[in-house]
Amino acid sequence: MALIVQKYGGSSVSDAASIQRVARRIAQTRLAGNDVVVVVSAMGDTTDELIDLAAQLTSAPPTREMDILLTAGERISMSLLAMAIDALGVKARSYTGQQAGLITDAEYGRAKIIDVVPGRIQKALDKGMVAIVAGFQGVNTETNDVTTLGRGGSDTTAVAFAAALGADVCEIYTDVDGIFTADPRIVPTARQVARITYNEMLEMAASGAKVLALRCVEYGRRYGVPIHVRSSFSGRVGTLVTDELGTGIPGLLPQDAQAANEAKNGDDMEAPIISGVAHDRTEAKITVVGLPDVPGTAARLFEIVAISGANIDMIVQNVSAQQTGLTDISFTLPAADAPAAIEALTKARADIGFDELLFDDQIGKLSLVGAGMKSSPGISAKLFGALRDAGINIEMITTSEIRISVVTRAEELDSAVRAVHSAFGLDSDGQAVVYGGTGR
Amino acid sequence: MALIVQKYGGSSVSDAASIQRVARRIAQTRLAGNDVVVVVSAMGDTTDELIDLAAQLTSAPPTREMDILLTAGERISMSLLAMAIDALGVKARSYTGQQAGLITDAEYGRAKIIDVVPGRIQKALDKGMVAIVAGFQGVNTETNDVTTLGRGGSDTTAVAFAAALGADVCEIYTDVDGIFTADPRIVPTARQVARITYNEMLEMAASGAKVLALRCVEYGRRYGVPIHVRSSFSGRVGTLVTDELGTGIPGLLPQDAQAANEAKNGDDMEAPIISGVAHDRTEAKITVVGLPDVPGTAARLFEIVAISGANIDMIVQNVSAQQTGLTDISFTLPAADAPAAIEALTKARADIGFDELLFDDQIGKLSLVGAGMKSSPGISAKLFGALRDAGINIEMITTSEIRISVVTRAEELDSAVRAVHSAFGLDSDGQAVVYGGTGR
Repeated sequence: MALIVQKYGGSSVSDAASIQRVARRIAQTRLAGNDVVVVVSAMGDTTDELIDLAAQLTSAPPTREMDILLTAGERISMSLLAMAIDALGVKARSYTGQQAGLITDAEYGRAKIIDVVPGRIQKALDKGMVAIVAGFQGVNTETNDVTTLGRGGSDTTAVAFAAALGADVCEIYTDVDGIFTADPRIVPTARQVARITYNEMLEMAASGAKVLALRCVEYGRRYGVPIHVRSSFSGRVGTLVTDELGTGIPGLLPQDAQAANEAKNGDDMEAPIISGVAHDRTEAKITVVGLPDVPGTAARLFEIVAISGANIDMIVQNVSAQQTGLTDISFTLPAADAPAAIEALTKARADIGFDELLFDDQIGKLSLVGAGMKSSPGISAKLFGALRDAGINIEMITTSEIRISVVTRAEELDSAVRAVHSAFGLDSDGQAVVYGGTGR
Repeated sequence: MALIVQKYGGSSVSDAASIQRVARRIAQTRLAGNDVVVVVSAMGDTTDELIDLAAQLTSAPPTREMDILLTAGERISMSLLAMAIDALGVKARSYTGQQAGLITDAEYGRAKIIDVVPGRIQKALDKGMVAIVAGFQGVNTETNDVTTLGRGGSDTTAVAFAAALGADVCEIYTDVDGIFTADPRIVPTARQVARITYNEMLEMAASGAKVLALRCVEYGRRYGVPIHVRSSFSGRVGTLVTDELGTGIPGLLPQDAQAANEAKNGDDMEAPIISGVAHDRTEAKITVVGLPDVPGTAARLFEIVAISGANIDMIVQNVSAQQTGLTDISFTLPAADAPAAIEALTKARADIGFDELLFDDQIGKLSLVGAGMKSSPGISAKLFGALRDAGINIEMITTSEIRISVVTRAEELDSAVRAVHSAFGLDSDGQAVVYGGTGR
């Protein structure tokens, strides 16, 4: 049969009952003859509770200690999950990131994976055991210290083990049924996408879609790991992220395969032009007013912003006013990075020579993503038309080969998403289901 | 200055405020110029909560997974404690049992220490850092798996590191002010003992005194580690467990030393005859009635009990009745071991040839402990007299060189302890203070 890596987020293992539900799914997968590796996040709110405890003690916890603290969460969930599987008569062993062989650099809190040496995991599989791996954590072998991977760490752990073990599929179990054409909380008629390419998924994730972390998709694309995003609550077939759009979904249980076949009847297998509409409310806009329009100014400006640690997203430069020789540059960046960027720019004001800085954190970003876009003319016209018909003003525009993003007022973002979703015919008849909070 | 190992139990680190109080004490000790290693238990009820979670999943959790689960508790407390110390401007690093070099056998849940290789701890000390070590846990280097030491594991961890590092003293911080002449909850006039020998402390611990685990005292005696039992709540000078009764207490802070000198004024330095009165309510009595009084019967009987896993404590054999050639044997054992022992004996009834088994779990054991006992005649007479005067019947008696134990009815145990404590002049004028629950 297949080698399947399954990842369960915190909301899927929030209490004893949900751990038992997950254990049953894992046992089923094993008993169907598959080799199974499970990556698990900390239970429910454990991580937040630990962060809160640390915050009661200090406003600047040493990052090494913070990483040791947080990894306790997965240690609890992984051992409990192993016990629950064992109680079903299926052998299971749990392994910390260190024991499982996930080697990282020494950047506490946002460590990067250097290598995966899954010797103990392979041995456990060879003995017919289910191997449970703590998500989100690894070891730096130079210091022999525990590290955490930061945002999206557990998803990335799962894809990394899937790549290292040559798994047939990496199943990411979460609290939604898969990838949707838009956030179902904003667009109740959003449709689940059956398949999506890595590149489209990357654009969706980079544009604010939260189901899969950018980093995890990048890892999957680099190593060609098929990622199957699905719900641990409904058990339904979810969304396959892959480059081979024609193939079936690997690792389906018999009951899954039947459901997938039934679903196919209403789903034509040709790749759609548009995958979905993503949105992002976490960015802010900085406008630098009255910049001298001479070569090198923009370079100097963005150098300073980069040193402040901010990640620039969109940039728009106005046409220079001929009388003054001055121009304005607007750019967007994560709102959390804005204070540092503003401080750095203010300090460099004399050096760069601008008049003033304008700051605006009431913006929203809408992105239309689709691999078919590059071969279909008229997509932007249709997008701008839909926004115009909805009375929504566009403040900035950027495009990639498979994405068009626009900035709107924050309070108009929801209606913008609904208008565009509808204009591109993405609405379904039914209503999507959302099950709970989001895990780590 | 001195190298001091400090151990803090769960009740001393039950929340953020108590972690900060403990951190201040540690920082003071470090800032007074001492090298400091801290062993810490899991916060408050964490361990019980984890056990409860496991119990919701299975009645027989695999011991390997149980050990991984429980060690999460110390991982949380040690990293939080390191943060709290760091916030006071004193450098601190936390280490798991594995990182600290505590090597054990592979007996999950009750692992024995094989070796302590404190290389990382020594390096941290050399850099002037406070080293925080997770109590209760180690690593089995053959399997590379986490193990726990079982009851008294954190105290034993502290003494083991004190021995391996050649520490001047191992301070065990708990929720009482030290070792008392009796349990203050039963005898409100119990006095704190200033000093006690390892052997006396072993007899006290084996006889039911709960402040220090037997195992920890044994380890201390073997390696000659002075153990200072004291309260993390009051900060007062506690009880020194050592063989060198004449020496001062190592590792006292300036304010401690002053308090110790003041205390000395009311305390003559000659070793007292009696250290204290211990009691134990956890035992049960089995009487085997109508045994053939022939050589080898007792040996066969206790062989069977031993194989059942029960630890025998006291044994009394009646004088054989001449007419029948039959005798009775009574023995005590931990009540928890009784069901297995009874089952084993019942199965072997035909083989051994006895009439019936009587079971009694309503017994109490009182033990009078004192190194001066062996050179002071009349101690037993005085003990039995005190019990007679209080109208208390003695059911069994055993003695060692420095201990006399008697079994009474369970409901008479408290008054027996008070009567004996009083008869031996152990009562103080004041009242002892008890601060809270007991840690691990």
